[in-house]
Amino acid sequence: MLAREMMAAHPDAPQQADEAIARFIEEAFTCAQACIACADACLAEKNTSELVQCIRLNADCADTCETLGRLASRRTGLNKDVLRGAIEVCAMACERCAEECERHATRHRHCAICADVCRRCAEQCRITMQAFH
Amino acid sequence: MLAREMMAAHPDAPQQADEAIARFIEEAFTCAQACIACADACLAEKNTSELVQCIRLNADCADTCETLGRLASRRTGLNKDVLRGAIEVCAMACERCAEECERHATRHRHCAICADVCRRCAEQCRITMQAFH
Amino acid sequence: MLAREMMAAHPDAPQQADEAIARFIEEAFTCAQACIACADACLAEKNTSELVQCIRLNADCADTCETLGRLASRRTGLNKDVLRGAIEVCAMACERCAEECERHATRHRHCAICADVCRRCAEQCRITMQAFH
Amino acid sequence: MLAREMMAAHPDAPQQADEAIARFIEEAFTCAQACIACADACLAEKNTSELVQCIRLNADCADTCETLGRLASRRTGLNKDVLRGAIEVCAMACERCAEECERHATRHRHCAICADVCRRCAEQCRITMQAFH
Repeated sequence: MLAREMMAAHPDAPQQADEAIARFIEEAFTCAQACIACADACLAEKNTSELVQCIRLNADCADTCETLGRLASRRTGLNKDVLRGAIEVCAMACERCAEECERHATRHRHCAICADVCRRCAEQCRITMQAFH
Repeated sequence: MLAREMMAAHPDAPQQADEAIARFIEEAFTCAQACIACADACLAEKNTSELVQCIRLNADCADTCETLGRLASRRTGLNKDVLRGAIEVCAMACERCAEECERHATRHRHCAICADVCRRCAEQCRITMQAFH
Repeated sequence: MLAREMMAAHPDAPQQADEAIARFIEEAFTCAQACIACADACLAEKNTSELVQCIRLNADCADTCETLGRLASRRTGLNKDVLRGAIEVCAMACERCAEECERHATRHRHCAICADVCRRCAEQCRITMQAFH
Repeated sequence: MLAREMMAAHPDAPQQADEAIARFIEEAFTCAQACIACADACLAEKNTSELVQCIRLNADCADTCETLGRLASRRTGLNKDVLRGAIEVCAMACERCAEECERHATRHRHCAICADVCRRCAEQCRITMQAFH
């Protein structure tokens, strides 16, 4: 990803939270992709009915991450309260999804990978939140 | 929109907040569409440079509304904390966008319509929040 | 939805295909919402494993419709070839999804509603395509 | 990105086009992010009014790439015709956006980066198309 490069090329002066935000944007899109792929892989498993909640939370997490990736990529007239709120919601969605994926991590490799990505994204959300205050 | 019909057809028993949520889903998608159209109409105006912040907030509002419309459409194992957080963020994004659109409402009809839609969506968010508690 | 009103408020002169496009935009967002809700309702059914393909096609159809709704809402410097291609892809995604939903329409009311919405959206895509040529 | 790892963990047997698709998914999300960031950076430039078409095409390209990234991440009961169509539309959207960005590449670094990313994504689309046939 080029989030960092794109941020450095933006005419608005970089701000304190920028390094955290650039990393966060990359984690958010990576997490969205992993969640979409994990939901689909869950659908292809034999025990789909046991993975319903996982598929459900994957979908919410993917949407939340993607929207946060979009919001955080916009620097013009930074919409701070909205961005801060979106980061908190995203951290929550990632944590819920990670908890569920971890329950199937030993049986399904895609859940193990997805849980890791969600944890990393949630953590990067928390780091970004602190940089903001 | 058919959000209400789809909700009534869902195997999970309807919950207290359902009527508010069905209305909210429709407002959220309507608001997303209006914001995308408003941003684009702003780009076509002669005074684009004065509308930069409007285009910017339209984009955030559209993404936030769309994601909330998606989240609220999922009833299986309701992801309550995440949904509640997303509703609050959406209300905020709609209010910010409405405030900006209202500043151009007398000159640009698309901003006037968009401001109304954003206000209505924000209000429906607030009503849904109360139904949740 | 206000797609028609927003289109009339756009500074660029309306074009021949506009009435068809305004209707199409509304159908596209309605279809996206119905597909997301249908996928989630399928997950809540007891026979989830028989509905895997339905959930799968619902997801593709929702994404395709949403993106087309976004693209068609932008009138400034109409990106004609891309829009035309996106309409064709959307019609296809709606038809695939409708075919699958129809197979479960007698058992699951959400599939029956969703199939109808997909058929209507696909038809509106075809009408819009003709208005374009 | 982890698109490759997620694909290898999917229960459905990998297919011929997989390596191309995994690369493509990563390019598509990277391109979506770059386009969103480029549109926003264009809004922050002093000559916004000259960048209207760039912002416009960035938006279409971002939406198209994101949806293709989602579609291509789903392997269960591969929706081949729709995916193939979406890849072609995405290649077109990337090329249109690249052409426009290239016109501002010497003045705006974000346009130069974005043009490169769009070209790469379009090329990966073309490679994937050939792997499909």
